[in-house]
Amino acid sequence: MNKKIQFGLYTAAAGLALFAVALLGSGKNIFAQMSGGLGSSLEAIIKARELSPDDVEAALKTFVPPGSYDEYYMFASGGQAGNVEVFGVPSMRLMKNIPIFSEDSWQGYGIGDNETKKLFAQGKAAGMTQTWGDVHHPALSVTKGMYDGQFLFANDKANGRIGVVDLRDFHVKQIVKNPLIATNHCGAKLTENSEYYVEGSQFGTPLPYTKFVPLERYKEEYRGLVTFWPFNRAEGKLEQSKTFTIELPPYYQDLGGMGKQVSNGWVFINTYNAEMATPDDLKGKPPMEIAASQREMDYLHIINWKRAEELLAKGQLKYNRISGMRVVPIAEAVAKGILYQAAEPKSPHGSDVTPDGRFITVSGKLDPHVTIFSFDKIQKAIAAKNFEGKDEFGIPVLRFKDVVEAQVEVGLGPLHTEYDDKGYAYTSMFLDSSINKWSLDKPAGGEKPWTLLQSLPVHYNTGHLVVAGGDTIKPYGKYLVTLNKWSLDRALPVGPLHPQNLQLIDISGPTMKLLSDTPVVGEPHYAVMIKADKLKPWKAYPEVGYSALERKASATLTLPGKERVERNGKDVHVFMTAQRSHFTPDRIDLNQGERVHLHITNIERAEDATHGFALSSHNINLSIDPGATVDVDFTVDRSGVFPFYCSEFCSALHMEMMGYLTVKK
Amino acid sequence: MNKKIQFGLYTAAAGLALFAVALLGSGKNIFAQMSGGLGSSLEAIIKARELSPDDVEAALKTFVPPGSYDEYYMFASGGQAGNVEVFGVPSMRLMKNIPIFSEDSWQGYGIGDNETKKLFAQGKAAGMTQTWGDVHHPALSVTKGMYDGQFLFANDKANGRIGVVDLRDFHVKQIVKNPLIATNHCGAKLTENSEYYVEGSQFGTPLPYTKFVPLERYKEEYRGLVTFWPFNRAEGKLEQSKTFTIELPPYYQDLGGMGKQVSNGWVFINTYNAEMATPDDLKGKPPMEIAASQREMDYLHIINWKRAEELLAKGQLKYNRISGMRVVPIAEAVAKGILYQAAEPKSPHGSDVTPDGRFITVSGKLDPHVTIFSFDKIQKAIAAKNFEGKDEFGIPVLRFKDVVEAQVEVGLGPLHTEYDDKGYAYTSMFLDSSINKWSLDKPAGGEKPWTLLQSLPVHYNTGHLVVAGGDTIKPYGKYLVTLNKWSLDRALPVGPLHPQNLQLIDISGPTMKLLSDTPVVGEPHYAVMIKADKLKPWKAYPEVGYSALERKASATLTLPGKERVERNGKDVHVFMTAQRSHFTPDRIDLNQGERVHLHITNIERAEDATHGFALSSHNINLSIDPGATVDVDFTVDRSGVFPFYCSEFCSALHMEMMGYLTVKK
Repeated sequence: MNKKIQFGLYTAAAGLALFAVALLGSGKNIFAQMSGGLGSSLEAIIKARELSPDDVEAALKTFVPPGSYDEYYMFASGGQAGNVEVFGVPSMRLMKNIPIFSEDSWQGYGIGDNETKKLFAQGKAAGMTQTWGDVHHPALSVTKGMYDGQFLFANDKANGRIGVVDLRDFHVKQIVKNPLIATNHCGAKLTENSEYYVEGSQFGTPLPYTKFVPLERYKEEYRGLVTFWPFNRAEGKLEQSKTFTIELPPYYQDLGGMGKQVSNGWVFINTYNAEMATPDDLKGKPPMEIAASQREMDYLHIINWKRAEELLAKGQLKYNRISGMRVVPIAEAVAKGILYQAAEPKSPHGSDVTPDGRFITVSGKLDPHVTIFSFDKIQKAIAAKNFEGKDEFGIPVLRFKDVVEAQVEVGLGPLHTEYDDKGYAYTSMFLDSSINKWSLDKPAGGEKPWTLLQSLPVHYNTGHLVVAGGDTIKPYGKYLVTLNKWSLDRALPVGPLHPQNLQLIDISGPTMKLLSDTPVVGEPHYAVMIKADKLKPWKAYPEVGYSALERKASATLTLPGKERVERNGKDVHVFMTAQRSHFTPDRIDLNQGERVHLHITNIERAEDATHGFALSSHNINLSIDPGATVDVDFTVDRSGVFPFYCSEFCSALHMEMMGYLTVKK
Repeated sequence: MNKKIQFGLYTAAAGLALFAVALLGSGKNIFAQMSGGLGSSLEAIIKARELSPDDVEAALKTFVPPGSYDEYYMFASGGQAGNVEVFGVPSMRLMKNIPIFSEDSWQGYGIGDNETKKLFAQGKAAGMTQTWGDVHHPALSVTKGMYDGQFLFANDKANGRIGVVDLRDFHVKQIVKNPLIATNHCGAKLTENSEYYVEGSQFGTPLPYTKFVPLERYKEEYRGLVTFWPFNRAEGKLEQSKTFTIELPPYYQDLGGMGKQVSNGWVFINTYNAEMATPDDLKGKPPMEIAASQREMDYLHIINWKRAEELLAKGQLKYNRISGMRVVPIAEAVAKGILYQAAEPKSPHGSDVTPDGRFITVSGKLDPHVTIFSFDKIQKAIAAKNFEGKDEFGIPVLRFKDVVEAQVEVGLGPLHTEYDDKGYAYTSMFLDSSINKWSLDKPAGGEKPWTLLQSLPVHYNTGHLVVAGGDTIKPYGKYLVTLNKWSLDRALPVGPLHPQNLQLIDISGPTMKLLSDTPVVGEPHYAVMIKADKLKPWKAYPEVGYSALERKASATLTLPGKERVERNGKDVHVFMTAQRSHFTPDRIDLNQGERVHLHITNIERAEDATHGFALSSHNINLSIDPGATVDVDFTVDRSGVFPFYCSEFCSALHMEMMGYLTVKK
């Protein structure tokens, strides 16, 4: 391990002196010829800002000049902010918020428009509208195991939901709710060609969770599950009617690793709380954090989903219909060779399949090793029916020693592992607060296999990490971002609640180098990083009058010259256009008690010519991208004079882009 | 004007070659001794990333090394995102979102908790809850004309509201709604010691706007206004019962400049649409953007609020009570020498008082000059009763030539002016897309007064700008940020809706230099920038069991060991504590139809030990800072098993910080 590059060990003062000498040398005169004396001013800046040589290097590696583009997009979950945030890498600038489960009035999401109302209706949990979500694991659609830049998926842990985002317009197209479970976790994982989105439950509940069963019957009647959601790529939608679900024990399902290449067709899902502890502290039960951490080993579910799919297609797999979902009982899954388990070390989190699909790295947070399971050995043990026994639910348990390829002692709190393009693995160390690099079986640098190579200190409590393309079959490498949970003294204080913090690390060389800190809004729980050139977002909608949700021309589009008000009893339909800098019509006179239906088409074709539509006192703000038609309807139940105006800056006469909606008593 | 520093004119290729030569010179060997060969790697980075010398300079000026702090906080409105965003300068990193009018589930704002419910109830418009706002002008509290770092104010243009934020915890403490007006605009301006928050209307409406009056009676019955909200600093609240309001003509009131020092006691409010145009395009009326831009001159309202305050205190100012507000009619304000006007050039936006209070710069977007009014001349003209006449409402109009000190031809689309510490002014040029620097009467560099000195091209459609401390009596200078409206090709595309874009400019030297681009989420409409050391945010609440909204110990606090469930008929009160990594109680068994009241106290004293409380399927997510007590209550109307868990990462056993709420049918 190169001690020199370790964070905090570098003597900035000494380095600065040397650096200043360098700049004061013969280079100075040459600097002086440049840009009105850049050389000396450069030196003055470095001195004044107390930058160390490492700082200078990091500044030059991360600065993206005005108007230049970042090399990668990073999609990071916003956690309980209910969104996904889009960053540019290496600048780490926040480019976009994608609201999924939470409202975002900037983009008109959830503030009156009918499209969000439809999405929020799809996403009801136990019959109740939810205006937030807890996004844990964003995932990108893949083709042949590589990001194709078409769709983004995100799960809502709090309510067991999944959102689908089209990356042409960065809009949500669908929210689905798993009716069986309260919470999900190992979501946001796609099979090799995005055939399925794989959703695992988290906290055990009755199936469905809307059925009351007392906690005393936890082992008997509470369960976990994994649901396979077919993805219809042409429609951009998950198909609930075609899902299938495998019932699982009421251990808490955690992250899942998707098989790749040789292991395609399989999924490997961690669990914790194999103890099946349940809470009741006021009655003297031990705290969950202790009761659920008693055992040395938990279980890795090993699931052959391809076989389940095939047997289902042939009608050879029994299932029960529960809440409309096809649920394969544990016993049936075991009987048909679909479900196995292996013991895995304590309180695992990451279950991460290597790019070639040959190995699964499991990180047990309370074990100082990462444990590398061999897919080949798993297959052989299954073929030989070489089990050490069964768990309480009758699931065969493979012998640990038979299926483990290696264990690497990495330190305290290994949590999540991703891979680069050169045969190395990177594990976030939750307790050690470091990123640890180790070799797979064939590292490009020829190091010893399965060996810890470097530990780079990062700051407090790193959770997940992301390597560019790190969960594809051919990672890009180059950058790694660690998603740290506490920020404390890392940035200016902003009240009791500090931002969490991303740290960008350069992994292009033989040793990792820390580049920068980025405080973030929300909880960036997990992230994926894709090359920028893979995305081709729309600059305007394909045609004027487009419905973003329906992905086709809207039934209510209005073309220029066709603006009108149609009255049908108490229903008043206003067909409106928006164009710099005018709404037509710009006056709407109504009588109290009427129901108004606004159908607004942005008839612009120019890039970035988005218009807003804000209506005072009605909790309505729309964002209408060029070409889009947006609808909103409401009953005018209060009299008065209500201005509306364009809320998205559009032109020099933006301030005049307004009108009045009046309501006569 | 130094052409060399103009954006886009620098030949990057030539510069790069020179720079590489400099690095390849004798400095190389010295570089080689540092940090494992920094010198050569530095050169390689500059080459590989195609950085020009200007880029290198900008990188070094803006990079804030990991763990280091920014020098300034910038508070930027989020526009229709309904929030204020906190940036660090010069890194331009987004440090925090302050949700004000919009929900933010990350911080538990608006997602179930009773405190937000109270705030949202305060902020009802025309009786309806609004879950968004359009924040235009954030303002910082001032003492003797300087930012004191205590409070932040923000207006909601869409609904005529104001939010008050305490900068100790960055939480909103109050939302007030002006019952008279639908929309406001010249908000967010404080008098010299924060005695008043001054709110101007925007679009003309009847007073109150909830009274229906047809648009045909616009001149007769529609009006504007300015309301003076006394600020009780000890309570951190605006006092609605003590406000007073001056009725104004139904021109559209725009921005207002607060008097300072010599002009303290006065406010200068721009207007546009002096034409009093009203819309009705379907009936053939001309578009508002044309009808409202006919006249060459609009009116600057010149208001002596100090005199109004004094006369009111003596009972010598007549007012009407409308919707509970004290409204001084135009005629009374004129009769008592409170209200004057001056003609001002076309469609003005910024009305910006110089730090010494002697001048007011007005920027008419459709006039190529900035017009500098002299407070002294205004006073003399008023004393001499030297008016050119009166407007349609009887307000005396001062002669333009009598009150104007200078006009500086700056170019197309001047919009907003701020000042530095050296006698210079900076005006954003909306149409020219530049920041133009010009001299006041006594520039430190000895240049000719009232003269354009430099035009720095920035990109598309700069709106407002901010200089550090730029609206205080003693600006800090050093940095300027321009808030650009369109971003187009400035950053990676993210769907039809591009982010808007901030550009950071170094104004410390004799010429301005562009440093960096920062795409932003939401619309950063306006910003204020304060030295970082002025803020002293809390790291934990002063005592365990603190109510953030009440700013004192909560009546429902729960201390460790006192956790309990109290039943009173159908009301179930749960007194809960949260501490790493446990909720007590962690099991809540209820019967359908009961009303549960959760009172949760975070008993942590450690910095950043915030806990979340997410309850599945109930649209509840709370963020409970160390020491805080948060309450939520709801009726359990659906049976089932609902896990709750800590949604703010807190420890290695965060995943186990959970419990169950069960509801029996």
